[in-house]
Amino acid sequence: MSKVTCDIAMSIDGFTAGPDQSLDAPFGTGENGRLTRWLVEEPETGAAAMEVANTAGAYVMGRNMFGPGRGAWDLDWKGWWGDEPPYHAPVFVLTHHPREPLEMAGGTVFHFVTGGIEEALKRAREAAGDAHVAIAGGAATVNQYLAAGLVDELRVHVAPVVLGAGERLFAGVADVDLELVGTSGTGLVSHLTYRVVR
Amino acid sequence: MSKVTCDIAMSIDGFTAGPDQSLDAPFGTGENGRLTRWLVEEPETGAAAMEVANTAGAYVMGRNMFGPGRGAWDLDWKGWWGDEPPYHAPVFVLTHHPREPLEMAGGTVFHFVTGGIEEALKRAREAAGDAHVAIAGGAATVNQYLAAGLVDELRVHVAPVVLGAGERLFAGVADVDLELVGTSGTGLVSHLTYRVVR
Repeated sequence: MSKVTCDIAMSIDGFTAGPDQSLDAPFGTGENGRLTRWLVEEPETGAAAMEVANTAGAYVMGRNMFGPGRGAWDLDWKGWWGDEPPYHAPVFVLTHHPREPLEMAGGTVFHFVTGGIEEALKRAREAAGDAHVAIAGGAATVNQYLAAGLVDELRVHVAPVVLGAGERLFAGVADVDLELVGTSGTGLVSHLTYRVVR
Repeated sequence: MSKVTCDIAMSIDGFTAGPDQSLDAPFGTGENGRLTRWLVEEPETGAAAMEVANTAGAYVMGRNMFGPGRGAWDLDWKGWWGDEPPYHAPVFVLTHHPREPLEMAGGTVFHFVTGGIEEALKRAREAAGDAHVAIAGGAATVNQYLAAGLVDELRVHVAPVVLGAGERLFAGVADVDLELVGTSGTGLVSHLTYRVVR
């Protein structure tokens, strides 16, 4: 069965986004691009650190990561990423509101799943074949999969940033056991890799 | 003027101790030695990672780190560390309750400071001479010094542990700017070193 991985950027005080996420501030107020500065300013080492995340056979994400809207769909909204999203694979978006699949350029197809996290993962596994499935975010989605014991490998990319408030990674995740697999870093980020023990 | 350093062990979800710290559970419930397992099980690399902390010319700590008591002093309590504490230098303990200095074996002298964090640091700097001053903990004390812009170098030793609740490092520390100096690790801990920018 496909391995389930998760890569997520976090502030040193435990947040993956600041408060008040919106169209203008997808990572919330106060974040100002600081959680992912390493990806922008160190593109080569950043891409190397994100290699597992970038080579998944399928992805799962929360609706909040797909877009800022809530409730019924605005069908003009096709994600944050323009015509050719960086996934190049099926992406299963968790939502309470049904929507037809959305095919983008470059092989990304967004599927909208109303049956919950286990159904989304089941469909992602089927789509991924022999490749792994990546839980793409955000924190609320990652926390649900961690709490359910459904993540095999977690890479936390710790930015040297104190956000003070916002979306907390590990909120409501009490009983997960982590095994430290590796620690590495550059001048802008620390990469902490864990195996999640059942 | 003496550099001010701080070394502190933290769970990956941001806590330096679990809830309900007590005489029997100085790191709170649920911690069970897991935050400092790397120091016990990897004593050589642990000691190397703690070299700056262990070579300070003077220390500052909160009362909670000196002992579990509150209110008036129980003069029989002489710290958690037995007759010869590991500091071998003056230690300035923040408290609201005056107490005479307490001289221990091996060069540790506990001084009890009622004048607040700035007075404690001033006295520690005088005592340290050319050496650095280490803020020994706990989180509440470290957070006060960080918020006041009085820490130069912060080393967070991240244990692969999710505590879920307890004492949060960086609580109330909103505007601190961190510069990542180095990332390293072993099989049990990730060492993240920051310069704290004013």
